[in-house]
Amino acid sequence: MVGGEAASAGALVKARAADVAAAIDSAFDHLLSVPDDPRARLYEAMRHAAIGGGKRLRPLLVQATSDLFHLSRESALRVGLAIECIHVYSLVHDDLPAMDDDDMRRGKPTVHKAFDEATAILAGDCLHDLAFQILSDEDTHPDPFVRIELVRALALASGPAGMAGGQMMDLEAEHARFDLATVTRLQNLKTGALIAFCVDAAAIMARIPEDARKGLHGYARDIGLAFQIADDLLDVEGDAALAGKALGKDAAAGKETFVSLLGVDRARAQAHMLVDQAKAHLHGYGVEADLLRAIADYIVERDR
Amino acid sequence: MVGGEAASAGALVKARAADVAAAIDSAFDHLLSVPDDPRARLYEAMRHAAIGGGKRLRPLLVQATSDLFHLSRESALRVGLAIECIHVYSLVHDDLPAMDDDDMRRGKPTVHKAFDEATAILAGDCLHDLAFQILSDEDTHPDPFVRIELVRALALASGPAGMAGGQMMDLEAEHARFDLATVTRLQNLKTGALIAFCVDAAAIMARIPEDARKGLHGYARDIGLAFQIADDLLDVEGDAALAGKALGKDAAAGKETFVSLLGVDRARAQAHMLVDQAKAHLHGYGVEADLLRAIADYIVERDR
Repeated sequence: MVGGEAASAGALVKARAADVAAAIDSAFDHLLSVPDDPRARLYEAMRHAAIGGGKRLRPLLVQATSDLFHLSRESALRVGLAIECIHVYSLVHDDLPAMDDDDMRRGKPTVHKAFDEATAILAGDCLHDLAFQILSDEDTHPDPFVRIELVRALALASGPAGMAGGQMMDLEAEHARFDLATVTRLQNLKTGALIAFCVDAAAIMARIPEDARKGLHGYARDIGLAFQIADDLLDVEGDAALAGKALGKDAAAGKETFVSLLGVDRARAQAHMLVDQAKAHLHGYGVEADLLRAIADYIVERDR
Repeated sequence: MVGGEAASAGALVKARAADVAAAIDSAFDHLLSVPDDPRARLYEAMRHAAIGGGKRLRPLLVQATSDLFHLSRESALRVGLAIECIHVYSLVHDDLPAMDDDDMRRGKPTVHKAFDEATAILAGDCLHDLAFQILSDEDTHPDPFVRIELVRALALASGPAGMAGGQMMDLEAEHARFDLATVTRLQNLKTGALIAFCVDAAAIMARIPEDARKGLHGYARDIGLAFQIADDLLDVEGDAALAGKALGKDAAAGKETFVSLLGVDRARAQAHMLVDQAKAHLHGYGVEADLLRAIADYIVERDR
């Protein structure tokens, strides 16, 4: 990739990402107003987890894919919000002492540190429900068939055959020696399934038939893996202050990652190869796919 | 209530409840087949939590309300299965050391005891997803509008404005002194919202307009509270072996309950009054509501 291309891709992504992040924060602020009753602490914890600090890559991906099909930005935002609910709930639960035991997330204390474990478990559970509440609301899409397809696809992407199944494999990785194929499958579930849903959600809203989504699915699979390899590289080489969380934890836990299995140089080369391949899947689209192309580049260039 | 009525009500409930319980166990067994990969432990934990031992009162309520409208038993079973996923996930999370710290549930070790805390958190999360996966599937109901209404109502009943909000109030009850009105609100959220959904789900499937559901809503609210008062009475007077879990925990935690606030005798009288009131809400129905009436009686007569 030429330096100038990377710079303009970065600028394009950053401008749009800032808009999306502001819209997501504002939507969470509106949705999570704190009631004046004994549930106040629960809502405070949900706000602590959901508002501020995230890259909001997933909602941005929904917007970028929605651009391809000229979908309403409001629908794309609400679907992005639902996905962010799932992503944030998974971070809150993964950070718990019984899971990854993390104290910092997005530059702030994790929810169980700022509140307590019981509140963190419940706040995660409530964000989990909120995702489905948002998708089922007619403000998200006027067609109930589209809404139910979104619910179905998200429940699959977040459950045992998706994100949560990947997290279970990740827990087992501390006791087992996974090979490259198993680590790839783990990451396809743990982060790939939800990233794939971001792209698929726009296709569902646009009523694109399943067999016309192959390019988009290929794009999603490739950037999902590239994203994870970039994460593994940041875990080894990154700046904890920029990342807003502890780094180097996988090596300390004895878990195999793309970097431990391939080494830094081959892992980085693999990530760039996946990004090129992801963009090649978009060859049938014109300038309307430029944001998706820029996101692919950004994923391996980011510093957090 | 006449003794003979109670006996025949009990027999009617028990016969149908046994059928429903067998169907729920068999459906979970089918749905949760253990994969031959590192997620096996997650599925084993979900099976441990979901299969066997429960009263399955909620799926029975869906069946009983579905009888009123001559709905398909298959649809009622699948909705009951989704509700049971939510109920079971909440038990798994509530039993965690950071929450109620229980070792026994339904006569078996709790999930975090039989497995570990991380697996219990994830198994709960996966059952939570499974509920929405089941509701969104066209096998549950052919009409996508009905399915999305079910999703929406369940997400509301289980989230911060329902079950999880009630559980948060319950956590706060250890540090606060709640009055009767606050305990009533707590229980209307913690157990009432999901019980109300059981009844509402059948009305949604039968496309009964909102304003024609008032009797059913009154019935659900009354049996929900009666159920909780009976639970509080069992917590004080019950047999731990029959209950399959530790009893006397609320008093030990210094939490106010219906029994601590009203005393045993007034609490029992209140439960019976609520049951009579619940049945009075069904006056517009004939024999097709007999199972709902019998369930109301059973709720305060049960020994576990």
